[in-house]
Amino acid sequence: MSFDYSAVLSARAAAAASPFKGYPPYHFVGGNIDEPSLPAAALADAVGKVLRAEGHDMAKYGMESGPQGYLPLREFICDNLKRRAAMTVSPDEVLITTGSLQAMDLVNEALLEPGDVVVLEGANYGGALTRLRRLGVDFVGVDLDEGGMRMDSLRAAMEELKSQGRKPKMIYTIPTVQNPTGTVMSRDRRLEMLQIARDYDVPIFEDDCYADLIWEGERPPAIHSLDTDGRVIYCATFSKTIAPALRVGYIVAPWAVLKHILPLKTDAGSGALEQMVLAEYLPSNFDNHVNGLLPILKQKAEAMTQTLDEHFGAAAEYEKPIGGIYIWVTLPKQVDTRKLFAAASAEGIAINPGPEWTVDGEANKHRMRLCFGHPSVENIREGVAKLADVCHREFGVPLTSGNVERG
Amino acid sequence: MSFDYSAVLSARAAAAASPFKGYPPYHFVGGNIDEPSLPAAALADAVGKVLRAEGHDMAKYGMESGPQGYLPLREFICDNLKRRAAMTVSPDEVLITTGSLQAMDLVNEALLEPGDVVVLEGANYGGALTRLRRLGVDFVGVDLDEGGMRMDSLRAAMEELKSQGRKPKMIYTIPTVQNPTGTVMSRDRRLEMLQIARDYDVPIFEDDCYADLIWEGERPPAIHSLDTDGRVIYCATFSKTIAPALRVGYIVAPWAVLKHILPLKTDAGSGALEQMVLAEYLPSNFDNHVNGLLPILKQKAEAMTQTLDEHFGAAAEYEKPIGGIYIWVTLPKQVDTRKLFAAASAEGIAINPGPEWTVDGEANKHRMRLCFGHPSVENIREGVAKLADVCHREFGVPLTSGNVERG
Repeated sequence: MSFDYSAVLSARAAAAASPFKGYPPYHFVGGNIDEPSLPAAALADAVGKVLRAEGHDMAKYGMESGPQGYLPLREFICDNLKRRAAMTVSPDEVLITTGSLQAMDLVNEALLEPGDVVVLEGANYGGALTRLRRLGVDFVGVDLDEGGMRMDSLRAAMEELKSQGRKPKMIYTIPTVQNPTGTVMSRDRRLEMLQIARDYDVPIFEDDCYADLIWEGERPPAIHSLDTDGRVIYCATFSKTIAPALRVGYIVAPWAVLKHILPLKTDAGSGALEQMVLAEYLPSNFDNHVNGLLPILKQKAEAMTQTLDEHFGAAAEYEKPIGGIYIWVTLPKQVDTRKLFAAASAEGIAINPGPEWTVDGEANKHRMRLCFGHPSVENIREGVAKLADVCHREFGVPLTSGNVERG
Repeated sequence: MSFDYSAVLSARAAAAASPFKGYPPYHFVGGNIDEPSLPAAALADAVGKVLRAEGHDMAKYGMESGPQGYLPLREFICDNLKRRAAMTVSPDEVLITTGSLQAMDLVNEALLEPGDVVVLEGANYGGALTRLRRLGVDFVGVDLDEGGMRMDSLRAAMEELKSQGRKPKMIYTIPTVQNPTGTVMSRDRRLEMLQIARDYDVPIFEDDCYADLIWEGERPPAIHSLDTDGRVIYCATFSKTIAPALRVGYIVAPWAVLKHILPLKTDAGSGALEQMVLAEYLPSNFDNHVNGLLPILKQKAEAMTQTLDEHFGAAAEYEKPIGGIYIWVTLPKQVDTRKLFAAASAEGIAINPGPEWTVDGEANKHRMRLCFGHPSVENIREGVAKLADVCHREFGVPLTSGNVERG
């Protein structure tokens, strides 16, 4: 007889996983990145070198660096943020995390209680929304346009909350290559957001995970860099530039709040080897590597937009990506991307349905996110063409494909 | 003007860290291990080899293995548990975690709600107790003797709870090299625990983190291996055998419960590189490495017991370690190890005061845990002698030191 776990599971453990059966043939979801350009050999050289020099330090949980993470990596992060994001910060203000998801969990845990409210972009990273729901936190979505979160809508949302006697615990924003819209917020708009945050006395949590992946136009300074009163908590990652399976992200925040975040990190430290290899590899290689990655991502983005144009035609609307690894696609109103998701899955095509990536799911059920970072150009062309077939079969759109009317 | 975070912090974020200032000179706390024997060069070779062969797979969060972790490592874990713990399990029943602390967090989250009760050894791993407190979970401590948790006390505790109408969610146990007592539970007692668990219809969470570190006597079969009805959830780690700063632990559990634990692991996977290096290094090196480590730990344990004998004399009672990296020391009743902790800290000596490692803190305030895994033999001798000085200064005991009466 087998023990019956259903009697002892917590409410949070209601969900059940299925055994892993491999990835679908057309895998247009997830933050996976280009495989051939991953610098495996260079990382192998780097990790060998640093392990031989300092590997024995791994006998201590914090090595020689203590609980904030490997000091040489924190030093690189400061240098890199100075050059790329105009941020002036010291290693004492950096906390290395096990991926940016842990950064998000820690910041949420430090600031949020059930019933609190967070203001954020109305189309958003699905994982951010599910985390807030799990914490019992309310969130208010703000409209976006081609420049990211709209400041008139943000001010209106703050004013509306104020009229209800509710003060948000933070503004959460992905200002640079927003997920899923790919928008980049201008410097002026960032300054305006800071002014609104000051006016309503709230902190900003700036999630900059995709900010290194811009191939067109300038990367604006981080909101953190424009902040004069220490109200911005910043997080980012090396998942999207080096390797997602290397779990290394970080928080940058004033010590006034970082000292409260650090005790919540009860994991005895993030992986030493992954920190050491990055600290060894990045200083002399990060810029070259990213510069080599950008044209590849751009080529994949173009393969996806060209195939969308060819097979969906006017039925698929999107902003042409200028960075990142995803496209936010608007389909005709009759398409429900939750149903498209199910039908496409059956054909080996994975997509993110709009409702999972938006605050107002019903209003966005005809939208979807498609990721192009990992699949090859050929796979993108095949998969998006197949997706158009599935969509036509299920919803009658697109009506034409490659200039040929569908039957 | 600086933003005032005190107005936005959650209740859980009340604690504030101090900046890291390095380790104390006599560091007898924490799960750190012997530094010279850490196989840094061999790990460097292994990681170089595996990265060159499979490094590109790190472009996907789950590599080719999916969310349960790197398959070659799960395969090694199964082989190793078969040989060392008499467990017959398949890789499908293994979930790699970011250290065993994440394993503990996941199991706790899957089973426990605030107000639930857990039955466990009355002297216990401090981190396990603080985690349960944070979750709002009650726990009942069971007496230990030189064979670990006492089964008469366990049955009495279960019966007492039953009479109160309370059913514990699990029995949490560290049966092999118990933390902090170092005791090893016999096979017979393990079978008795399983019978009690059946009688009261509860699962067992078996924490085997130190089980590879036995240098005297046989390692008994894991409780998991003796279980016939899938009621044991098992966790362990490579922190204590290879390197604590490599964050790789694991859960072994029937799929009936593992499928509910897996969705709670929302971290997008544990670090790939740390899993890959272990999967490459361990199969041909684990036994040799552990066999080389044991005499070193034994030597350190002896250095600590000899110095305790020499400088504390009869004032320090302990069971001589037969494995692990710590000694549980009982001092005369007038010693309060919380005060000793403070006085010793001022002299650069770190100890774990008994109340932090016991359910009934007041009854154990004259006890302390001393870790010998990381410091050198010389450092142990110096530090324990100094600790005796501090103890005498503060509490008047020990009265003699090295056969010389203290003034």
